[in-house]
Amino acid sequence: MVENQQVEHIEKSLRKVAEIIKQKGRVILNQFPITPPQFVALQWLNELGDMTIGDLSTKMYLACSTTTDLVDRMEKNELVERVKDQNDRRVVRIHLLEKGEKIIQEVIKKRQDYLKGILQNFSDEEIAFLEKSLHVLHQEMESSSKE
Amino acid sequence: MVENQQVEHIEKSLRKVAEIIKQKGRVILNQFPITPPQFVALQWLNELGDMTIGDLSTKMYLACSTTTDLVDRMEKNELVERVKDQNDRRVVRIHLLEKGEKIIQEVIKKRQDYLKGILQNFSDEEIAFLEKSLHVLHQEMESSSKE
Repeated sequence: MVENQQVEHIEKSLRKVAEIIKQKGRVILNQFPITPPQFVALQWLNELGDMTIGDLSTKMYLACSTTTDLVDRMEKNELVERVKDQNDRRVVRIHLLEKGEKIIQEVIKKRQDYLKGILQNFSDEEIAFLEKSLHVLHQEMESSSKE
Repeated sequence: MVENQQVEHIEKSLRKVAEIIKQKGRVILNQFPITPPQFVALQWLNELGDMTIGDLSTKMYLACSTTTDLVDRMEKNELVERVKDQNDRRVVRIHLLEKGEKIIQEVIKKRQDYLKGILQNFSDEEIAFLEKSLHVLHQEMESSSKE
């Protein structure tokens, strides 16, 4: 049974950590020719492979029209391309191009470098706990948002 | 010594958790008459008490002119008021009003309720680990961003 005071502490830490990560993420993105929503889209394409506009909209919690505009700009910048399904040519998917893949991997690498600096004073045990507890938290949040 | 694979896992979990928290936070805010930047400002005023525009700008990583516009709108909506320092009337601070305080506390309560639901399947031990590791992570991030 979770105590109210623990929930208060965890909520506050998460709120603060999420805010710092967002701010740090913006500073990192300033070094790259992509916007924060483009980063989120590239991240999903990098993780899940080719996606339809509908699937990408669901993942990004955006209206399809907003995602279409986003993909248009990304296609113009040669980060992604639209490809027709070989078996059903009515189905169009967004495919990550080499330039987009390179950028997303560099951005994630910079985020990892930042985090590595943060974790340098953590003991092996603390890092193992953090890794495990964040993984479980993420899984619970994912399954809760699907309900 | 933190291993690269651990950093990769922690970065990914944090990125995903921060994104879900942001999205969930937006859904919660839809029930209240404030915008996401107003939420961040109210949160700082609730936590630190009266603040100058300069201090609030620093905390929010915004230009002073942007913060001034934000505070103008919040003052119009009776969430905050500007008060002159009793000892030095050239110094103006932003003060949280009762309406703003009530809203920020209700928003944070809703975020805690959401998190309580997420944590219901966690063991006492897991919750204690999560609480501690997120607290340490937050502290390290705060001190790193001050460097």
